[in-house]
Amino acid sequence: MEEYFLGIDVGGTNVKVGLVKADGALVSRQKFSTGELRAGGQFVEKFTRMIGSLLQQNPAVKKVGIGIPGTLSHKRRTTIDLPNLTELNGVKLHKILTQTFDGVDFFLENDAKAAALGEYHFSGQLLPDDLLFITLGTGVGGAAIIKGKLLMGGRGNGMEIGHIMTGNGRLLEDNIGKKGIVEMATAMLATYPGHSVLSNAPALNAEDVEDAARRNDPLATQVFARVGTILGEGLVSTIRLLDINTIVVGGGVSKVFEHVRPSLIEVLHRFLPPYYTDSLDIRLAVLGNNAGMVGAASLCLEGSR
Amino acid sequence: MEEYFLGIDVGGTNVKVGLVKADGALVSRQKFSTGELRAGGQFVEKFTRMIGSLLQQNPAVKKVGIGIPGTLSHKRRTTIDLPNLTELNGVKLHKILTQTFDGVDFFLENDAKAAALGEYHFSGQLLPDDLLFITLGTGVGGAAIIKGKLLMGGRGNGMEIGHIMTGNGRLLEDNIGKKGIVEMATAMLATYPGHSVLSNAPALNAEDVEDAARRNDPLATQVFARVGTILGEGLVSTIRLLDINTIVVGGGVSKVFEHVRPSLIEVLHRFLPPYYTDSLDIRLAVLGNNAGMVGAASLCLEGSR
Repeated sequence: MEEYFLGIDVGGTNVKVGLVKADGALVSRQKFSTGELRAGGQFVEKFTRMIGSLLQQNPAVKKVGIGIPGTLSHKRRTTIDLPNLTELNGVKLHKILTQTFDGVDFFLENDAKAAALGEYHFSGQLLPDDLLFITLGTGVGGAAIIKGKLLMGGRGNGMEIGHIMTGNGRLLEDNIGKKGIVEMATAMLATYPGHSVLSNAPALNAEDVEDAARRNDPLATQVFARVGTILGEGLVSTIRLLDINTIVVGGGVSKVFEHVRPSLIEVLHRFLPPYYTDSLDIRLAVLGNNAGMVGAASLCLEGSR
Repeated sequence: MEEYFLGIDVGGTNVKVGLVKADGALVSRQKFSTGELRAGGQFVEKFTRMIGSLLQQNPAVKKVGIGIPGTLSHKRRTTIDLPNLTELNGVKLHKILTQTFDGVDFFLENDAKAAALGEYHFSGQLLPDDLLFITLGTGVGGAAIIKGKLLMGGRGNGMEIGHIMTGNGRLLEDNIGKKGIVEMATAMLATYPGHSVLSNAPALNAEDVEDAARRNDPLATQVFARVGTILGEGLVSTIRLLDINTIVVGGGVSKVFEHVRPSLIEVLHRFLPPYYTDSLDIRLAVLGNNAGMVGAASLCLEGSR
């Protein structure tokens, strides 16, 4: 019997579930509203019941990977701190699931780490065994794979790249998370002399700025050039600490990466010697919207941590 | 027969050699002028002969650890890039020594990593199995130990903490290496309204500023408060990436650390949540001037990498 995994991507808006073959092929997917699962204050119970019905629908599944938007205990048994899903703070989720579903193995991991692992194992693009993964969305997440295994850090929650220092004295995510991008665009608009499609926008959001950059709006492209500079500053530190120079970029920004890349590369060359830049390889993640589910499923490949 | 190691600390000014017992006790030490070893352009040959005569003097030694001020190949066989000792650039040093000295094992490592390992194994202070080590001197070096082993990074030369970004857009070492400290003091002196013993100094060097701070000179203590802020910014990034919150500080700055610590701790608390700061442990290295030799000797304890 062919092996199937469930990959569950727990997000603040949706819980996405993918049925994934052991070679990484996404067979089918379902989406559940996180809000509905939270309603009534019984998230853990409803989430567990949801998994129960999924396992019933898919009796071939004996391994379930779950991507968690937050921190976990060192052994990946307890979910510790989930800023946008506090019902899971301090929950012994692994124990609950294992005791409820006999004969099924559960694998919990931080969502950015899971996405990195999915890209490494299941994206179909040939990647080296050492890579940095960075995902830009509402926040900025990251992971490192060294010799084919996730770098966990001392207590298991390393690679919080969104919270490292950049050259303007602010943390990476405060600069180039979605809120930071809106701030940047708003500040530039205040003094922008030319025409921008954003000039008339009543209330900007990050997607507007992205859309405008995709249509080569001059102001919006400047915003993403600045994103490249700041991202570059964060990567200078990360590369110096981890000596990895394959960088895989995922998340929303990939759609406008042509505007990010030149300034990013300029900063890396400005601050790093040839030892790092000679073999620099910056590329986009290819799993896109499925990265969360496929990444979670990849946790079922044991020995990756 | 009791086991003895040689620990060789290769520096730009001196090559220091310690005879070290397997429990870390430094039995005796010798110093050789790096300049003399370099004279005539035959550093590798003279260095090898020096080791030969040391081995002859100490026939009980079958393991030699060598701390290298620069980068090494992934397998620690070839010395790659030593800015202050270019004769060793691209030298297959491990092969040369192993072939010359039959029956002796050689262990090469970056000097900051060796010093961290020495502090971990041989300092006598009880340290956890996960720690960050940072040494402030002419440059700024660093290392991380995770589960009792050095973090090497993807290609083996990670933890170049001196070259990560700080909040003023400059790299850590440019700010708080010896040159940076002189720059800082000079800039402050230009506008300093009060009295400082440094006001009359003809040409400042970092030791003058340190001496003045040790005597609580108000301007010099401000310099080291600023050092604490900048060091803190670098550590914010490092802690977020590696999730380690025991920090061991070595090098010259330890003598004035009372002036560094308050601003360092203030910055860590400003940027890091309680998960990191609740169990924060910042302490000084205790091996002092012997850190290089004892650290190099600790490389002979196998299984530390």
